[in-house]
Amino acid sequence: MNEHDAAPLEPAFPDAPAWFAGLRDRICTAFEKLEDALSGTNADQPAGRFTRKAWEREGGGGGTMAVMKGRVFEKVGVNVSTVWGTFSEKFRAEIPGAAEDGRFWAAGISLVAHMHSPLVPAVHMNTRHIATPGRTWFGGGADLNPPIPDQRDTDDFHAALKACCERHACADHEKFRAWADDYFYIKHRERARGVGGIFYDYIAADETSLAFTRDVGETFLSVYPELVARHMDRPWDAEQRKAQLAYRGLYAEFNLVYDRGTRFGLMTGGNPEAVLMSLPPVAEWP
Amino acid sequence: MNEHDAAPLEPAFPDAPAWFAGLRDRICTAFEKLEDALSGTNADQPAGRFTRKAWEREGGGGGTMAVMKGRVFEKVGVNVSTVWGTFSEKFRAEIPGAAEDGRFWAAGISLVAHMHSPLVPAVHMNTRHIATPGRTWFGGGADLNPPIPDQRDTDDFHAALKACCERHACADHEKFRAWADDYFYIKHRERARGVGGIFYDYIAADETSLAFTRDVGETFLSVYPELVARHMDRPWDAEQRKAQLAYRGLYAEFNLVYDRGTRFGLMTGGNPEAVLMSLPPVAEWP
Repeated sequence: MNEHDAAPLEPAFPDAPAWFAGLRDRICTAFEKLEDALSGTNADQPAGRFTRKAWEREGGGGGTMAVMKGRVFEKVGVNVSTVWGTFSEKFRAEIPGAAEDGRFWAAGISLVAHMHSPLVPAVHMNTRHIATPGRTWFGGGADLNPPIPDQRDTDDFHAALKACCERHACADHEKFRAWADDYFYIKHRERARGVGGIFYDYIAADETSLAFTRDVGETFLSVYPELVARHMDRPWDAEQRKAQLAYRGLYAEFNLVYDRGTRFGLMTGGNPEAVLMSLPPVAEWP
Repeated sequence: MNEHDAAPLEPAFPDAPAWFAGLRDRICTAFEKLEDALSGTNADQPAGRFTRKAWEREGGGGGTMAVMKGRVFEKVGVNVSTVWGTFSEKFRAEIPGAAEDGRFWAAGISLVAHMHSPLVPAVHMNTRHIATPGRTWFGGGADLNPPIPDQRDTDDFHAALKACCERHACADHEKFRAWADDYFYIKHRERARGVGGIFYDYIAADETSLAFTRDVGETFLSVYPELVARHMDRPWDAEQRKAQLAYRGLYAEFNLVYDRGTRFGLMTGGNPEAVLMSLPPVAEWP
């Protein structure tokens, strides 16, 4: 069956894209507030603002990139997309419920922030709703990526996600945290990409998993800006910046070699500019 | 059959590693001469020298990295390695002659140079001798990666490789050049990684293909230092440097997403530091 002789799939929750877009708006507002609040290094620069760019996908759907290159956020992207069509023959074997009939519908929000200060952790958050003929699910996660880890940040980030999971019957924090440790691992370097978080995928789409997925977004919004505010005005030195740039090299390796979202995007004809917006503004392999 | 109950394979040309090492020595000498000869930007810095580092591979063999961070060459690695063992079950299906019995022997030289000046082309060269129980072959190639292409350089590089191919019955320049255009292509960006060169693989190992593979190395050594000398003393500006750093981002994408040598290295437990030495010293995704 090819792209043109099959009706598009109907998702379990057609309102999910609107919710993702609303979350995107609130996150952008919160991040712009942090830009305004800076009093440390770079405070002589203008506060950053997001700019948006829509893109269309040949074969169905598209998305909007929101990018800010600011004075706190060196490069942050908050992308939403809703795409549908038919997986390639080669790719469909990797996707639950798509072996026989390769049609899909997918919507999500994806965020990666790379910070000017090496003392402010970088971060990633993504949630998504996917439907194939055989299955419909939610997936997502968030992980903290400090170039120079800070135990209090790590503890607070995990505590927030643990509390989030405990609010939802479909979520198992211990399992999702271990899944993140396993997923966000740079095998060839034999090291973790960051200090972890949660990762979950293929959680059957129902009211419970929808509520959990929303809460992951809310939890991110409640905890990450606080960590930024905690550190953004602290001075940093050249050696710390150097450590950050080398750390970003590893981050780029993970995203290009292993990341499932990057692979999904590149294999389904997503806009490469949007798919690869997760890559750091500058990275070093010293 | 696992790593421990099979005798190691004997390569068709057990002297190939010694030849690769000799070529490495001559290339390093030529590159150090270029470092000495600089009179343009960075001439106030000390001329670079290669440092070598040996590594061993768990399961058989190892290699030597030769790295120089100089004033002409921002980062250049010339690696030789000779490794043997047994491919993982998953990886052997991708390799000719290894489906039944996953033993392999592989030796090669691999070179990537990233230059300070955006006017000097970056370059890649690799040749290798591989044996599996069912097959033994040579492969390799070279491609020119100028951030800002120069037609004369491109023409000279292709002319040298064409002349090399024409000296050997087993080599077909038109085919190998097209193979490079196909291989060094960044699919998701819909653009070539550089201006091409040659690529060949799975050429049955015999005296003819050995002679050709040696000549690829000699040809590289005869043409690339000349291109460096041609441009290295020319002044460059910040905008050209910016173009170079963005170009390097694409280069890193290619190597991490598509490159066969990188994949071979990571899948056979090669030293990640050596395998990923091809990555640029600094890259941007603006």
